[in-house]
Amino acid sequence: MINVGIFGATGYAGEELIDILLKHPEVKITYLAAKIDKPAPIAEFFPKFMNRLDLICGLPEVEEAVSKCDALFLALPHTASMDFVPRLLSAGKKVVDLSADYRLKDAKIYDTFYQTTHKDKARIGDAVYGLPELYREDIKHAWLIANPGCYPTAAILGLAPLVACGGIDFDSIIIDAKSGFSGAGRKFVASESGNDFKVYKVNVHQHAPEIDQELSKLAGKKIKVTFVPHLLPLERGILATIYVKKVQSSEFGVQSTIGLYKKFYKKEPFVRILEEGSFPQLKDVVQTNFCNIGIKEEPESAIIIVAIDNLLKGASGQAVQNMNIMYKFPEQAGLV
Amino acid sequence: MINVGIFGATGYAGEELIDILLKHPEVKITYLAAKIDKPAPIAEFFPKFMNRLDLICGLPEVEEAVSKCDALFLALPHTASMDFVPRLLSAGKKVVDLSADYRLKDAKIYDTFYQTTHKDKARIGDAVYGLPELYREDIKHAWLIANPGCYPTAAILGLAPLVACGGIDFDSIIIDAKSGFSGAGRKFVASESGNDFKVYKVNVHQHAPEIDQELSKLAGKKIKVTFVPHLLPLERGILATIYVKKVQSSEFGVQSTIGLYKKFYKKEPFVRILEEGSFPQLKDVVQTNFCNIGIKEEPESAIIIVAIDNLLKGASGQAVQNMNIMYKFPEQAGLV
Amino acid sequence: MINVGIFGATGYAGEELIDILLKHPEVKITYLAAKIDKPAPIAEFFPKFMNRLDLICGLPEVEEAVSKCDALFLALPHTASMDFVPRLLSAGKKVVDLSADYRLKDAKIYDTFYQTTHKDKARIGDAVYGLPELYREDIKHAWLIANPGCYPTAAILGLAPLVACGGIDFDSIIIDAKSGFSGAGRKFVASESGNDFKVYKVNVHQHAPEIDQELSKLAGKKIKVTFVPHLLPLERGILATIYVKKVQSSEFGVQSTIGLYKKFYKKEPFVRILEEGSFPQLKDVVQTNFCNIGIKEEPESAIIIVAIDNLLKGASGQAVQNMNIMYKFPEQAGLV
Amino acid sequence: MINVGIFGATGYAGEELIDILLKHPEVKITYLAAKIDKPAPIAEFFPKFMNRLDLICGLPEVEEAVSKCDALFLALPHTASMDFVPRLLSAGKKVVDLSADYRLKDAKIYDTFYQTTHKDKARIGDAVYGLPELYREDIKHAWLIANPGCYPTAAILGLAPLVACGGIDFDSIIIDAKSGFSGAGRKFVASESGNDFKVYKVNVHQHAPEIDQELSKLAGKKIKVTFVPHLLPLERGILATIYVKKVQSSEFGVQSTIGLYKKFYKKEPFVRILEEGSFPQLKDVVQTNFCNIGIKEEPESAIIIVAIDNLLKGASGQAVQNMNIMYKFPEQAGLV
Repeated sequence: MINVGIFGATGYAGEELIDILLKHPEVKITYLAAKIDKPAPIAEFFPKFMNRLDLICGLPEVEEAVSKCDALFLALPHTASMDFVPRLLSAGKKVVDLSADYRLKDAKIYDTFYQTTHKDKARIGDAVYGLPELYREDIKHAWLIANPGCYPTAAILGLAPLVACGGIDFDSIIIDAKSGFSGAGRKFVASESGNDFKVYKVNVHQHAPEIDQELSKLAGKKIKVTFVPHLLPLERGILATIYVKKVQSSEFGVQSTIGLYKKFYKKEPFVRILEEGSFPQLKDVVQTNFCNIGIKEEPESAIIIVAIDNLLKGASGQAVQNMNIMYKFPEQAGLV
Repeated sequence: MINVGIFGATGYAGEELIDILLKHPEVKITYLAAKIDKPAPIAEFFPKFMNRLDLICGLPEVEEAVSKCDALFLALPHTASMDFVPRLLSAGKKVVDLSADYRLKDAKIYDTFYQTTHKDKARIGDAVYGLPELYREDIKHAWLIANPGCYPTAAILGLAPLVACGGIDFDSIIIDAKSGFSGAGRKFVASESGNDFKVYKVNVHQHAPEIDQELSKLAGKKIKVTFVPHLLPLERGILATIYVKKVQSSEFGVQSTIGLYKKFYKKEPFVRILEEGSFPQLKDVVQTNFCNIGIKEEPESAIIIVAIDNLLKGASGQAVQNMNIMYKFPEQAGLV
Repeated sequence: MINVGIFGATGYAGEELIDILLKHPEVKITYLAAKIDKPAPIAEFFPKFMNRLDLICGLPEVEEAVSKCDALFLALPHTASMDFVPRLLSAGKKVVDLSADYRLKDAKIYDTFYQTTHKDKARIGDAVYGLPELYREDIKHAWLIANPGCYPTAAILGLAPLVACGGIDFDSIIIDAKSGFSGAGRKFVASESGNDFKVYKVNVHQHAPEIDQELSKLAGKKIKVTFVPHLLPLERGILATIYVKKVQSSEFGVQSTIGLYKKFYKKEPFVRILEEGSFPQLKDVVQTNFCNIGIKEEPESAIIIVAIDNLLKGASGQAVQNMNIMYKFPEQAGLV
Repeated sequence: MINVGIFGATGYAGEELIDILLKHPEVKITYLAAKIDKPAPIAEFFPKFMNRLDLICGLPEVEEAVSKCDALFLALPHTASMDFVPRLLSAGKKVVDLSADYRLKDAKIYDTFYQTTHKDKARIGDAVYGLPELYREDIKHAWLIANPGCYPTAAILGLAPLVACGGIDFDSIIIDAKSGFSGAGRKFVASESGNDFKVYKVNVHQHAPEIDQELSKLAGKKIKVTFVPHLLPLERGILATIYVKKVQSSEFGVQSTIGLYKKFYKKEPFVRILEEGSFPQLKDVVQTNFCNIGIKEEPESAIIIVAIDNLLKGASGQAVQNMNIMYKFPEQAGLV
């Protein structure tokens, strides 16, 4: 049993973390903070937690957090996490950071895409990219997890087997992604979400370099994807449709792409490869930590469709999965 | 002033046709029919037409239709239109067929994709493909219009300028399309549409050969696109995101892609090319007959985003636009 | 043909006014203004008006408006209209005010419910309450129209026949109303509208005194209704379910309530009384200026269900209907 | 640890039962059946259960169910349950019936409202109405639970304290209820649910006699409510707005209505009374087994707003709560 705290408890990801952790058999929530006007019981922010969690959510205070918690989740806006991480690590706490602050290994790219100057460059190298399917061993020993972005989680899981085996033309990757509006955060304006569908940040989204970084690492050479996000008139879920050209000479040609994916993810508790002819839909993964993948194989190309819940496998669920691995709890604890 | 009738008046497209034609200054609706249990006032099927249209909708009767109408709209399921078209044409009536029956010039492809045997092959060649932006002159003299499918309307309008000028690699075309559920017709089941998002008919949709046919004609050589449709939790609208690789040597290189599109569609009343950095969203075209196109230009590729209302520019609006051209009415009559 | 202008062109009601007036055969839009950061073409605020209306929307300037327009629509937030009305009337312009500023005859009630002090009390008495079904004759000669609120339009139309005939217990009126989120204005926050349903301002909404005022006038005695509004996860539409107890002795007992309503609204172009057993649903009135009313009659009570589009019959459609009456245009011009 | 089976596993309630029971620490699902074309793994019906439940769903077979299960949930359409209940009880199994078959103590009323003839009248009296807040002691010893309807659960919980104390005019009760479309079952048609809102079965819904029965029992005299249901464009949730007139002389006058409710539900794990000025919204209860109640008190009347998830507290969640009580498991097991 460990005590955990959440910075940014009143955002979408914070709300979701509370929901998961309340059902987690190995965890007690002992601290909540957020940038709010004045401290108040968490049930005033979220009536759904009434009678379930009797805790005041106050302004972030590192000392108080350190005294009350073994581990901290930072569900903060980008650029806010790096103010807290150094002090929490110095105090000997484990940290799962859901922001982008420690995901990009190259601080210059971070500065460009998040329009700021990184203030804690020294620790970027210490952070483990928290995608258990690729970095489970590192996560076990990590003190600081850079929890992946929602789009990168879907994109990387959808591409990892093909990129790792070198079976595709690395210049051909197109990721057409569609997300529920919770991905845009709680301040997003209604008139833009109700009964509409649109494209945004066409091929300039800040999650693209994160996808490039991880795929390049897997490929052993530089990859730059085409990435186009869209906004769904739904609260939750990401469905990404990925297009790749196969390399004909590749050895991978001897087996089906579905077979390749099944093998790659054989031991993964949260990745499900659908049978030929079946494809994911959001309702099969929403409210779960699962990632569903369906594949349409053509002679010279493949279309990979990936679905996750952006707030769970794409954020808070994955954060808890990472915590489970760090503390050697059962990896699915609190998540199924 | 002409008298018009509608076969299939109780489907989505029929309902939309009534709505448009009631506001059309040159048209009187004089006949309505549909495959229904028993004749009834149209306002019983659609209370929204109460006090606006006092007409009985009965079972389809060619003789009655012929005696009451100058022109007929067929908003029927695929394979049903070809039972009526020969008799209506013989009686000297003009016909706008919203089904797929006369769209595909190669009856074998029709038979394959619609899983049937075409019963009126002789007339396929007489039908004009009713996309005014490509075939306005032919439409002026046509007696039978094959009104385009909703996805093909979006896809062809989005690709025509680049395909016609030969500026792209014809093997590279990927169309990732998203449609409101009215595209699936009125019998579609709710539990599949509410609060969900999914892919379907991955690269096997029956609209793909229609797109291939028209683009191949424009290109002067065979084109086969990758086409993946998705279903939005919205009633109306199609947004298609199209990916192409440019041909470097192409003369088209001397001007921007946006410039190319503006020139191509300069005189079109219903196609709007957005400025650089602006992209379409469904709410800008829903309930209108417009097609909005936004373009993201990259050094070696382009991303074209197209939005239409699937029931208007993608079906009934375009059908009326075609009728306007056939009868030399102002092309925008009833449509703005 | 008259020239009209709109103050508040960038809000929901302003957008809707532009949409209607562009199709109106007797009107030209010549002036647009709104509280914005800097002047810009209206098509930049609403891409849907691209190629349809080539007009700059600037900051409100009374002199410019006066020089360019015969009549003005004020689609402004409450308390903003009374700054402009006196100057526009003095300049000899006709004004349709869509805000609440001139609706309540008792300025004290206005001050209480809108938490301000009315600045133009003298003109309140000159304003005609713009509900054509009750005040058509007055509207014909009016210079200032106080266009009714959306909920009051639904509630008053739903109750007028029974209140006017004295057939119900005036203390028994309960109005349970449900509105799309556009009723809350464009600044409303998404996280409160997506995929949720809730009650708000329970029996304290500012539209209640407006309903009370008009019903009391009809009844000839003071009426105070119970009014509870709810927020639907839809952009448009109001459906109000109204509960009343009948007065047994009332003469009205000799005919059915449906008969009473049909007679009361016999000549109204935009009110439709449904037959027994039929009830309104939003999709029958959304995107129209109609008000549909269905009635369930019980021995001692009646349940009246009313549906309108809150942005049309509940705001901009009714505003244009009022303008049509003021200028002796056909009452349905631009509206069907 | 007990073994349980579900008849009707492929409907909304069945799906929800599987979801809950998979997380329940004291239960193993050992049998699934439904009226389907042919037996198949449950994950084929619901891909979301892939890798989580490896069980074939076949056609209902009482013998097989009896051999494999200790207790059975019947999530069947009305009139189907009474075919199975006698045989299951005879075999010594405990049964929670989610249909209406054993809810109404007067078989004649059942026959009228469900348009059939009850085939197991003898056992109606043995069934315990499964609303734990009223019948917890009886549930402990029951073999057959008639699990309440979704609307009745909301309505009865919202009215019980006031009815039990006699503080209201029993003739005045009006229940204006709004439900997500899952309440209408999986066969409901999309074109009726997408982007619409409507009233239905105005004061003739089959849940009204169930509400009347339980309130009459509480009051000790016959109560007949006015009950009007509406259909929301949402998958899940019921929000009921209830209007009552107070009896002035009632002793209950000495305390606030909120105080009365807090006392009445003091020990209830799943009923939450909101503070004055706070009101329920669906998102606070959806995906939970909670019932939230908010109250607006007026001098002579009260407005009570109740929110539940129709599939959980209104169906499957409550069914599991009943099972927990029957088996002396912690009442919240599997439910928070």
